[in-house]
Amino acid sequence: MQVTEPLARFLVALRPEDVPERVRHEAKRSLVNFFATALGGCRNEAMEILIAALTETLGPPHATVIGRNERSDALNATFLNAVSSNVLDFDDTHLRTVIHPTAPVAPGLFALAERSPIAGAALLHAFVLGVEVECRVGNALSPGHYRRGWHITATCGVLGAAAAAGKLLGLDAQHMSWAIGAAATQSSGLIENLGTMSKSVGVGNAARNGLAAALYAARGMSGPEKPLEGPRGLAAVMGEGADLASVADGLGDTWELMQNAYKPYPCGVVLHPVIDACLELRPKVGDVDRIERILVRGHPLLRERADRPAVTEGREAQVSLQHSVAVAFLRGAAGVKEYSDACVNDPTVLALRRKVYAEDDASIPADAAVVSLRTTAGDMLSAHIAHARGSLARPLSDRELEEKLRDLAGYGASGVDAGRLIDALWGLDRTDDAAEVVRMASA
Amino acid sequence: MQVTEPLARFLVALRPEDVPERVRHEAKRSLVNFFATALGGCRNEAMEILIAALTETLGPPHATVIGRNERSDALNATFLNAVSSNVLDFDDTHLRTVIHPTAPVAPGLFALAERSPIAGAALLHAFVLGVEVECRVGNALSPGHYRRGWHITATCGVLGAAAAAGKLLGLDAQHMSWAIGAAATQSSGLIENLGTMSKSVGVGNAARNGLAAALYAARGMSGPEKPLEGPRGLAAVMGEGADLASVADGLGDTWELMQNAYKPYPCGVVLHPVIDACLELRPKVGDVDRIERILVRGHPLLRERADRPAVTEGREAQVSLQHSVAVAFLRGAAGVKEYSDACVNDPTVLALRRKVYAEDDASIPADAAVVSLRTTAGDMLSAHIAHARGSLARPLSDRELEEKLRDLAGYGASGVDAGRLIDALWGLDRTDDAAEVVRMASA
Repeated sequence: MQVTEPLARFLVALRPEDVPERVRHEAKRSLVNFFATALGGCRNEAMEILIAALTETLGPPHATVIGRNERSDALNATFLNAVSSNVLDFDDTHLRTVIHPTAPVAPGLFALAERSPIAGAALLHAFVLGVEVECRVGNALSPGHYRRGWHITATCGVLGAAAAAGKLLGLDAQHMSWAIGAAATQSSGLIENLGTMSKSVGVGNAARNGLAAALYAARGMSGPEKPLEGPRGLAAVMGEGADLASVADGLGDTWELMQNAYKPYPCGVVLHPVIDACLELRPKVGDVDRIERILVRGHPLLRERADRPAVTEGREAQVSLQHSVAVAFLRGAAGVKEYSDACVNDPTVLALRRKVYAEDDASIPADAAVVSLRTTAGDMLSAHIAHARGSLARPLSDRELEEKLRDLAGYGASGVDAGRLIDALWGLDRTDDAAEVVRMASA
Repeated sequence: MQVTEPLARFLVALRPEDVPERVRHEAKRSLVNFFATALGGCRNEAMEILIAALTETLGPPHATVIGRNERSDALNATFLNAVSSNVLDFDDTHLRTVIHPTAPVAPGLFALAERSPIAGAALLHAFVLGVEVECRVGNALSPGHYRRGWHITATCGVLGAAAAAGKLLGLDAQHMSWAIGAAATQSSGLIENLGTMSKSVGVGNAARNGLAAALYAARGMSGPEKPLEGPRGLAAVMGEGADLASVADGLGDTWELMQNAYKPYPCGVVLHPVIDACLELRPKVGDVDRIERILVRGHPLLRERADRPAVTEGREAQVSLQHSVAVAFLRGAAGVKEYSDACVNDPTVLALRRKVYAEDDASIPADAAVVSLRTTAGDMLSAHIAHARGSLARPLSDRELEEKLRDLAGYGASGVDAGRLIDALWGLDRTDDAAEVVRMASA
């Protein structure tokens, strides 16, 4: 079976005009969401720690650290921008694999664009291809790989990052294959680390090490012929019954970016229809003191992942049904501020979340939910959400993505001109210098 | 089962005087061998490529790149020194696991010593502990982990590097555990990449990322409680029937460094007794033109790994029985020069290796061999090696290690004063500034 070679040939041969316009637009939407979450996350505690730890090792200030005034060499900036864009758990999701596709792939491309001018269309094209690689390999390894405990965003992200950077560097098929090989041997990331700050190390490394793999290959560093499909290659070692042939099937006919989804709320995706329902009910309730009891019905996954009545930290609240319901009613929002430690310990939030109950209903799909409440006067109110906002059936609009970027810039990097950045992102395919965009996002 | 916590507590509590003198001396022997192979490998093609690819990203010149005049930040120097010390396949071997222990662990310690003065005894102590961690985890994961296709030097090396750097940074048990966790999520490296230049990426990253893990933890980056033993931790995800409890059993009673071996020849360890036998026969043969036929008998592993009569590159010749026999007779040596591309294609070498035959003999142990030859005059000569030079039963002496350093410095970094460096290494436990040693090894 041949996988790496046909994949490398496809990557090298594909021209921007071979990619449908709707896919290129989706790429821009992913980048709007990427800058939104990176601006929102750029002052997160994990970022501050990583920058402090790395500061005396940073190379020349060639590249922007999004939302901040520090600059660094291309590899460290790539690491940090992947971290900030992912740290809030607010970035995009390829639902079939649960890969967050953009955090590993985009940062290296912008760092390369700051090294020497690159047309925006070329950057977008490389981005489309990088996402295609990481998600196709992710599809082939799913579901066994994630189930075993691999953090698939990191393990597959490094391959996408290498492919995308390799495309931008103009590698031929042999060198592209070497880049993929150098990425495969760096593939790492354990689920055990999720929920702790060290999650960020895996995602940051995926971006950094993928770019490094492409830079090494460009200089002639050889790799194995079959890094993905060889007897001791990625699929054999890190797969569990992988369907590897699918990686190179129908290349150019389908586009994984079209399966990408964007979150309206920085919390577990199972909670999204619940929050939608609460926000729909809120104006009908008026004063929250009128609420006696709230009953949430959803797919059994909802309680399995998010039945956490007694949380004390923002990170944990991101997977708490009770907290999410409480803030949606009390504040009419479920944004980054509502998942801060302060909000989690607010007495009014604590009081309301004690009134939240949940029930399994296997007939309800995972992106749907029903929220019913009883008022102290005995009235019953109910809202049914068939598809959550941000699901593939009900994607965020371009305007909603813009709004997300404005909100998050205001939260994490108020010095950035969000409107100007948004305009530049929609116009990315028309600029001769893609670096302009990322420079606009520095503080 | 608790593994990480007792391991972290042991690492934090252990004092230099708790380590037997013979173990500390073995640590110095490992470091003599480390500088030898790093000096020998510092101009290797893979090094040149990696330095060229990284050059514009290197941070401030705080740390020495061994054998060269470039300097860089601590993380990149650590990466490069791990690569140079391992790239020739001439570094040390923990035989039970096939881990090359020093390349991942030592470089980060010298980089830290260049950051702020550290006593040589403290560096040696941290080195002993780092090797203990990587080899104990390696023991627990063996043999399933390597058999599955994991490059165990890289996958376990990153843990040793983190533990050693964490010790030198004075981390407490909680932070040490976080360092181990940040290392675990970076554990990577595929056997598929061995035999290509990208092998070096895995080994370099193990050293670099282990140091980074300790630096992150020192700043407070949290990790999981059970990075090694948790349900989605390292052993569950990367182990195959791992005996993880053994990691924390008998800590301080046994020392994995005492199982470390040093190669006299830069080639596959199965070839070492064969070369010993040829070098023993050589003076008895006199003129090699008298040789009609050479028969090598050894353990079946010998032919399985090294029956390669028609090699064209130095890298491949490192696992060629026929090439190794030919150069031992022709040149009376099997050093780095004898495994160069030029030597592999030398017509006199080609002619002699056609006269080499091999036979399996399952009664011969893997570190033994019998070489017999027939002369054109019909004489029969034979040599039997019961234990190869460099095996645990017949270790290289301190003088032989010194000679190896002198030879390799002459090969790769002739500007380095090898005698002065050797003296400094034997006296490492008496200096207040361990960085002096590594600075002596710059070009």
